[in-house]
Amino acid sequence: MRLSRYFLPTMKDTPGEAAIASHRLMLRAGMIRQSAAGIYSWLPLGLKVLRKIERIVREEQDLAGAHEVLMPTIQSADLWRESGRYDDYGDEMLRLTDRHGRDMLYGPTNEELITDIVRRELRSYKDLPKNLYHIQWKFRDERRPRFGVMRGREFLMKDAYSFDLTEESARHSYNAMFVAYLRTFARMGLKAIPMRADTGPIGGDLSHEFIILAETGESEVFYEKGFDAFDPLAAMPDYDGDLQPVVDCWTGLYAATDEIHDAAACPVAGDDLITGRGIEVGHIFFFGTKYSAPMGAVVQGPDGSQIPMQMGSYGVGVSRLAGAIIEANHDDNGIIWPVAVAPFDVGLINLRAGDAACTGAAEDLYADLRQAGFDVLYDDRDERAGTKFADMDLIGLPWQMAIGPRGLEKGVVELKNRRSGTREEIPRDGLVARLKG
Amino acid sequence: MRLSRYFLPTMKDTPGEAAIASHRLMLRAGMIRQSAAGIYSWLPLGLKVLRKIERIVREEQDLAGAHEVLMPTIQSADLWRESGRYDDYGDEMLRLTDRHGRDMLYGPTNEELITDIVRRELRSYKDLPKNLYHIQWKFRDERRPRFGVMRGREFLMKDAYSFDLTEESARHSYNAMFVAYLRTFARMGLKAIPMRADTGPIGGDLSHEFIILAETGESEVFYEKGFDAFDPLAAMPDYDGDLQPVVDCWTGLYAATDEIHDAAACPVAGDDLITGRGIEVGHIFFFGTKYSAPMGAVVQGPDGSQIPMQMGSYGVGVSRLAGAIIEANHDDNGIIWPVAVAPFDVGLINLRAGDAACTGAAEDLYADLRQAGFDVLYDDRDERAGTKFADMDLIGLPWQMAIGPRGLEKGVVELKNRRSGTREEIPRDGLVARLKG
Repeated sequence: MRLSRYFLPTMKDTPGEAAIASHRLMLRAGMIRQSAAGIYSWLPLGLKVLRKIERIVREEQDLAGAHEVLMPTIQSADLWRESGRYDDYGDEMLRLTDRHGRDMLYGPTNEELITDIVRRELRSYKDLPKNLYHIQWKFRDERRPRFGVMRGREFLMKDAYSFDLTEESARHSYNAMFVAYLRTFARMGLKAIPMRADTGPIGGDLSHEFIILAETGESEVFYEKGFDAFDPLAAMPDYDGDLQPVVDCWTGLYAATDEIHDAAACPVAGDDLITGRGIEVGHIFFFGTKYSAPMGAVVQGPDGSQIPMQMGSYGVGVSRLAGAIIEANHDDNGIIWPVAVAPFDVGLINLRAGDAACTGAAEDLYADLRQAGFDVLYDDRDERAGTKFADMDLIGLPWQMAIGPRGLEKGVVELKNRRSGTREEIPRDGLVARLKG
Repeated sequence: MRLSRYFLPTMKDTPGEAAIASHRLMLRAGMIRQSAAGIYSWLPLGLKVLRKIERIVREEQDLAGAHEVLMPTIQSADLWRESGRYDDYGDEMLRLTDRHGRDMLYGPTNEELITDIVRRELRSYKDLPKNLYHIQWKFRDERRPRFGVMRGREFLMKDAYSFDLTEESARHSYNAMFVAYLRTFARMGLKAIPMRADTGPIGGDLSHEFIILAETGESEVFYEKGFDAFDPLAAMPDYDGDLQPVVDCWTGLYAATDEIHDAAACPVAGDDLITGRGIEVGHIFFFGTKYSAPMGAVVQGPDGSQIPMQMGSYGVGVSRLAGAIIEANHDDNGIIWPVAVAPFDVGLINLRAGDAACTGAAEDLYADLRQAGFDVLYDDRDERAGTKFADMDLIGLPWQMAIGPRGLEKGVVELKNRRSGTREEIPRDGLVARLKG
């Protein structure tokens, strides 16, 4: 992409309204713009990241055997009256009335709607298990929206819902999502730790939050030494097999947020207990028949009896992750994208846009890199070198290349690794091979 | 995908509430379910089609030089007061109030919001031209929603907005979308004819509707013989070059919907005028400074003066297309998907799920087809052959294969082309080559 044609409105100054790093950097890097309090428009650079996050989430859900659906944003209030949550939910629910005076709402979550779909279609125990997910915008009318996309009102969430005949089978569905979440966050370059959690308004008696570690995290977290030894991507899980040993391995170590942690009762102490800060990026729940029983979501069992389905729900904050990844990956100069979610692979800077030789060399390299399959942001603007370097650091692509008269004379291109800061002069002909490395 | 695990709730009977073919077939084929009047959930099969339509739309927008953004669904009423449309828009606008009593609305379209973004970021004529698009859910509170996703209340639309310094340049942006739309619909296997249109509440003085021909279409259309000779995919357009000749070629033939057509004034008559029925799937507008002037969306011109940007907007009904494609592609037995938007490439039927030899052969073929890159829906259910054939015809995949004891004995598999109805017996080893052929 030629920057001269792209829509990438970067900002030099730190916007006053932004209190945390990810919010500041997403505004400065031209990723988002606020449209109303807690409601954001995603500009091209931000949307590319959001789509990459979404794709990883989707791939791991599909691998774990979940099926993608798409439920609407606007729901009928009647369903929420059936579950009893319409009145419980409070001011965070965005309520509205359509032109015929019917009570509607903008879905903050989808337990009721998916249960309604499933109770109409699944009739027999043979139709189970099923796990259905969607990636859709939600709205929660936060009293004080802040921290950019980390606590917005309109936000993108992946929510999955599992339906099983027995508690044992439901536990397997829960474990599958547990493992899929570990893989999902690891693929984004994040260290996520599952922590036993309160279930809150979703209900149920088994729940884990997935917390990524970041110095600027919203909550204090306490966890036992040893998580570093686990690698969720070391082997492909067998989702049809027994996943309990994997889950037991991760839950065998102590980990809790400050909401639950009780220093006096903590089984781990001294150097074995690490204190840090974290950001919640996923939350999974098993809640049995909390929704299926009142809503009549039953199947016929092998013996002909009507059995309410055992349910769980599983959320990933997709838009929140864009912010959370930045919280865990930035420095004073800007964002440092993990490769898997970087909006472009390479930033190519033409240091002398007015110079025919430099421009020719930059155009050639731009063509070669694209030919080799790299997604390149090519800064072909007529701007000062300092501005170009600063913008590249700010938007944080994994690799930067700069073409200028001095390198050209020597037949080399300067290659910078954004994360390590290392600069190397690479012979022009070896660049593609070096990147493929 | 194994059908035994998939969520594909097909229906034998025609649902009473569905008045048109696409609505009936989308319900029967388990593509959608109504969640509230005019509001649908997309089940896995429907969502796969929706995503394929979306991808084609996106690829053609990108090729034409538009940049993808994503604006939120909920907008502030204040922006619409600036343009003067808040009061004009009437009951179709879904209005709501947030917890702090602020007037908000669910966007029925995005001229105001995109103009607000652009006026804050584009300052100089050097920043132009720009064309920004998004693919986002919209809400129009239709008084009488009907015809399934063809006239739903919550619907997915691609809307693009172009910003230019001069009318001439804006005309080029309009032409680029004109050409991109022709390609978009052609890639979906549709014959779309651009027809001069009224501009309605969007405003402006230049507008075309893109109408696809379908016997069951909503409007009567009148067009001159000759459109069949044009192939939008014959050559790759040069979006940097002059597109006026291409547009002139298409607009040189007479074409109008019944809203505009006047038999007495029509320049074409007799056998040269064809009467048919059509469905609107796209609509493009040039409206100059209608929004930029009242909203102060100006750039500094080369002479230092402040110039309001020349704007156009360009819509494609993405969710509507799922229905429109079916209206144009079905028979008494079900849907007949064009290859480019088919949810799977091949449907593989095991006629004797209880038989070890048949099941072994079906599993082998399923593995081979996937290995060869085909997306296969494998009916491994324990159901009668008649049910399986009927379901396959209903969901309309381009190819069907059936494995049964008789074919197995002869070493052949029955291959059926859904569109032509042709059945062939193909030697097992030649199947992959036959499909690729």
